[in-house]
Amino acid sequence: MHEDPATVRIELGERSYDILIGSGLLDRAATYDGLPEGGDAIVVTNDTVAPLYADRLHAALAGRHARVHRVALPDGEHHKNWQTLNRIFDAMLSAACDRKTIVYALGGGVVGDMAGFAAACYMRGVPFVQLPTTLLAQVDSSVGGKTGINHPLGKNMVGAFHQPLRVVADLATLDTLPDRELRAGLAEVIKYGPIADMAFLEWIEAHLDRLLARDRTALAHAIRRSCEIKAWVVGQDERESGLRAILNFGHTFGHAIEAGLGYGEWLHGEAVGCGMVMAAELSARLGTADRSIADRVARLVARAGLPVRGPRLGAARYLELMRVDKKSERGEIRFVLLDGPGRATLRPAPDAEVAAVVDALSA
Amino acid sequence: MHEDPATVRIELGERSYDILIGSGLLDRAATYDGLPEGGDAIVVTNDTVAPLYADRLHAALAGRHARVHRVALPDGEHHKNWQTLNRIFDAMLSAACDRKTIVYALGGGVVGDMAGFAAACYMRGVPFVQLPTTLLAQVDSSVGGKTGINHPLGKNMVGAFHQPLRVVADLATLDTLPDRELRAGLAEVIKYGPIADMAFLEWIEAHLDRLLARDRTALAHAIRRSCEIKAWVVGQDERESGLRAILNFGHTFGHAIEAGLGYGEWLHGEAVGCGMVMAAELSARLGTADRSIADRVARLVARAGLPVRGPRLGAARYLELMRVDKKSERGEIRFVLLDGPGRATLRPAPDAEVAAVVDALSA
Repeated sequence: MHEDPATVRIELGERSYDILIGSGLLDRAATYDGLPEGGDAIVVTNDTVAPLYADRLHAALAGRHARVHRVALPDGEHHKNWQTLNRIFDAMLSAACDRKTIVYALGGGVVGDMAGFAAACYMRGVPFVQLPTTLLAQVDSSVGGKTGINHPLGKNMVGAFHQPLRVVADLATLDTLPDRELRAGLAEVIKYGPIADMAFLEWIEAHLDRLLARDRTALAHAIRRSCEIKAWVVGQDERESGLRAILNFGHTFGHAIEAGLGYGEWLHGEAVGCGMVMAAELSARLGTADRSIADRVARLVARAGLPVRGPRLGAARYLELMRVDKKSERGEIRFVLLDGPGRATLRPAPDAEVAAVVDALSA
Repeated sequence: MHEDPATVRIELGERSYDILIGSGLLDRAATYDGLPEGGDAIVVTNDTVAPLYADRLHAALAGRHARVHRVALPDGEHHKNWQTLNRIFDAMLSAACDRKTIVYALGGGVVGDMAGFAAACYMRGVPFVQLPTTLLAQVDSSVGGKTGINHPLGKNMVGAFHQPLRVVADLATLDTLPDRELRAGLAEVIKYGPIADMAFLEWIEAHLDRLLARDRTALAHAIRRSCEIKAWVVGQDERESGLRAILNFGHTFGHAIEAGLGYGEWLHGEAVGCGMVMAAELSARLGTADRSIADRVARLVARAGLPVRGPRLGAARYLELMRVDKKSERGEIRFVLLDGPGRATLRPAPDAEVAAVVDALSA
């Protein structure tokens, strides 16, 4: 007998869906109950994940679908581009996948973002299911329908909002996750505390060692609470006209680090970890949040083994890279700043203050 | 004083918009009334249209937008691909266009489809306005929100539904349209008769010579009635779950011709013209429509100076190319067949009958 998975619901009217969180979900027939069946399926994964889990997913889907195709992409953020995306279209067209084909995204954030974007565009839209296999994807990127690819001039600049039919977060897949990836995922877990839930921040402070030791109970709680917060935010603001921007805490600085170093040099979560330290410091300097919160964020990021100092690109380069951020308006960069305990807000900041933060926190 | 333009409304709830049809609309300030202003604009056009109309559009927009950028794509269906699409993203990112930027698509169907798709994907979606300068784009492709690019294995296989804020059909731009393009556009006008409105079919039969002579009054009526029919269909079935497929009359055969010869060899409208003759013949053979209607379609296509016989690719190749059509399900090709006067329906057909039609009508 299996334990029932925990379920978090994303309420988006006719686009509503469930996030299932549990151990061993990948192989379990009940995981897929209620999804459309009978047509084709294609598993989009990468070269690292395919040997670990693709055969098992294939077996679980074989009875549900007429044909189950597969395409394995090269692994890594620097492959999140047109060329790699086209490999998905090539595979789908070569297999004559039709409009009823379901795309199963099996992997981390890069696979999920690209498979989701391919699903959004293939024949102007086919359904897809997220099966995130990294902590980062389970707590953040697989949820909420943001899909896309990078452009040399900016991260996630080309994409679509396309909600999955379901998200399946199988805790067992975290067993094979490298430590560096686990730590990167913790950055996005930590994020939810200061922007939305101080009690969760305290819980993370108390349980960080267990999370780093991959305690399943602690991980299950961290994933569930993260998804609950994200579901609450996305349910109110699916297309980021306002509130949803708070989920980008640390991402404005983080994207600049990723683009400035070249995608894949730092993991996304590493850049976000460091970016949160910078954004919290900026909040403290501008007086929108207490320095004590900025200090807690920096301490947690450090304890998670994530970088707390950015690469020395120079403040001017940071500013240049951040100006093409999606949250910018008329060339004015807008930052997610902490705004009292468990709250965040989107605001511009004087270039001089931003530069001071970058100078103080890069080396 | 200017005559008021004719207006056709597309009713799609919060995505509703107007099609303005008239002469000299491009330069007139009132054409743009009510559209968002103040932010950036980018005019997406091509190397043929840019020298004719881009400066005039630029002048009309200069007072409304902080900055007006421009990108001219190479002209032609064989450029409707990733590489060309990326030039739009490159231009927008280099100019630091933000989420409020409005994309103005100035050109024919290829420009409209690519600019619309770029708008759908840039930062996960920015608004756009269609300014079609070909008859084909004015009566069909600029209306209804279908955007996308071609893939070597199939036409319009990668794209999005993304509705424009407005469509501006300026009849004056047809003055510079080559005859071959005018004839290609008439294919899509003719299409609306047999599938939806026999009275319009009769009108086209009576006015074809005037349309070919570019009589403004006749063109204005043809464009308006075509847009009314398209608005009625799209208003009921925006994402083509049923009815909207009838607008693809002639397109299943037509897409096979375009892909089989290589994009750009025949104009899209030429392939659709020939495709309609084939689809009407198939309808007559299968008994879904009277032979008299098939004969009328063939006569009109011929009178418009469009091809009535397809290239000799062989029936097997036609069938192979049509199997990846977006309307196919589980490898079964579905055709838009005429189904009584002014009605059409989506159905499969026996391969042998399809092959017989191709053999009889290609040379």
